Amino acid sequence: MKKPLILVSNDDGITSKGIRLLVSIMSELGEVVVVAPDGPQSGMGHAITIGNTLRLEENDIFPGVAAYECSGTPADCVKIAKHFVLKDRKPDLVVSGINHGSNTSISVLYSGTMSAAIEGAIEGMPAIGFSLCDYASDADFSHVADYVRTITKKVLKDGLNEGVALNVNFPPKRNESIRGIKICRQARARWQEEFDLRYDPNGRRYFWLAGNFVNHDKGEDNDEWAIANNYVSVVPCQFDLTAHHTVVSLNSNWDDIL
Amino acid sequence: MKKPLILVSNDDGITSKGIRLLVSIMSELGEVVVVAPDGPQSGMGHAITIGNTLRLEENDIFPGVAAYECSGTPADCVKIAKHFVLKDRKPDLVVSGINHGSNTSISVLYSGTMSAAIEGAIEGMPAIGFSLCDYASDADFSHVADYVRTITKKVLKDGLNEGVALNVNFPPKRNESIRGIKICRQARARWQEEFDLRYDPNGRRYFWLAGNFVNHDKGEDNDEWAIANNYVSVVPCQFDLTAHHTVVSLNSNWDDIL
Repeated sequence: MKKPLILVSNDDGITSKGIRLLVSIMSELGEVVVVAPDGPQSGMGHAITIGNTLRLEENDIFPGVAAYECSGTPADCVKIAKHFVLKDRKPDLVVSGINHGSNTSISVLYSGTMSAAIEGAIEGMPAIGFSLCDYASDADFSHVADYVRTITKKVLKDGLNEGVALNVNFPPKRNESIRGIKICRQARARWQEEFDLRYDPNGRRYFWLAGNFVNHDKGEDNDEWAIANNYVSVVPCQFDLTAHHTVVSLNSNWDDIL
Repeated sequence: MKKPLILVSNDDGITSKGIRLLVSIMSELGEVVVVAPDGPQSGMGHAITIGNTLRLEENDIFPGVAAYECSGTPADCVKIAKHFVLKDRKPDLVVSGINHGSNTSISVLYSGTMSAAIEGAIEGMPAIGFSLCDYASDADFSHVADYVRTITKKVLKDGLNEGVALNVNFPPKRNESIRGIKICRQARARWQEEFDLRYDPNGRRYFWLAGNFVNHDKGEDNDEWAIANNYVSVVPCQFDLTAHHTVVSLNSNWDDIL
């Protein structure tokens, strides 16, 4: 049987601990090609590089694995992988991560990890973003490898609905083992921002974006609940942003201007 | 009656022609505060600045209007407007644009214009992104002002469903007048990328992202159809990315690993 072709990317950069574990697991399951940012790209959302040039260099960081570092965003990495590095070979799967930090709830919108996965879905490939809810650069990933393997095998075998990428988050390492996998919806939560005002050595002000994550969601079917209760959360995400219910209501309520 | 407070942002930068028209129309309808990028931020998607500092400076470019230029992304602009510039005053409306270029179909994901509007919706404010399907920096906006005014008045009067921002696109100026407004869904279309490989003066390769927009959608209820047929397209967009149908199907098809 032909080995599946698996494209790996991330948003923490090609040297991060999380992508090293992901490459190692994917190498058990298929032929791996890595195209990942040459530095941190966290919080890049679905940004692409359109007013600037891109660099792409081969990198021998992963023994026996074809790898490239790219100066662009995670979405750029998937695009240049598909259309330049791999050319006529279409990956059977795109995986991104494992991110150092949570991408649950509203964070999916800001997530570079998930933008690589969603870009894969846009290009018609099954895609998964993996994130560990621990921001440390030396985070303990030892409890997640089996789940990454299980979920990836399942997607390689069954595929995914067209236009869907999976947002998989793992709880941080706790004394108790992970309790299992939950299919979830995106929780209704948001960041309550604060701007930390400081002054540079020349007396000019600048800001750091900071803030707290606030969960307004009382449900038990969402990703925040799953992580809090030590489950792996799997949220299927789509890139059709249309609020279809509102299409219907605007068509009736806006009749005076339509 | 108290004038509504309207926050204006964009992604082409505070000096672009599109935002000048938008500020002028909004000034007829309410009290305007502008917080916009200090340079072009096209294609930034929903990026935020988390590994770097932000600058914010007052700008007197719009006579009689409080305006600030920010070094960050469109989403940063809305966040710093809400949490620093306006503090306890919550805008009645967030508008973004008028973008020089189309944000129909899949482009909504890459759009800085729409990320400002969606950030408004996340913060619980009615929000609209306006884009003209003409990329020229000196594009002719003369045919859109009446529609911007009509749609904005409607949203100020009726509000929008929670969690929804409008993606409004205008056809380019044609000989024939615009035929009206259509409420649409996001068309199924995508960018077919090409990477333009070049060599710098030192012989190192670099790339420009390029490509063509390919519309696969045969429907007449989508934004691409509306623009092609000289209508204004209005797509209500949501930031809940959950593919709810797939939640149901994964819950039954993944029973062996759940």
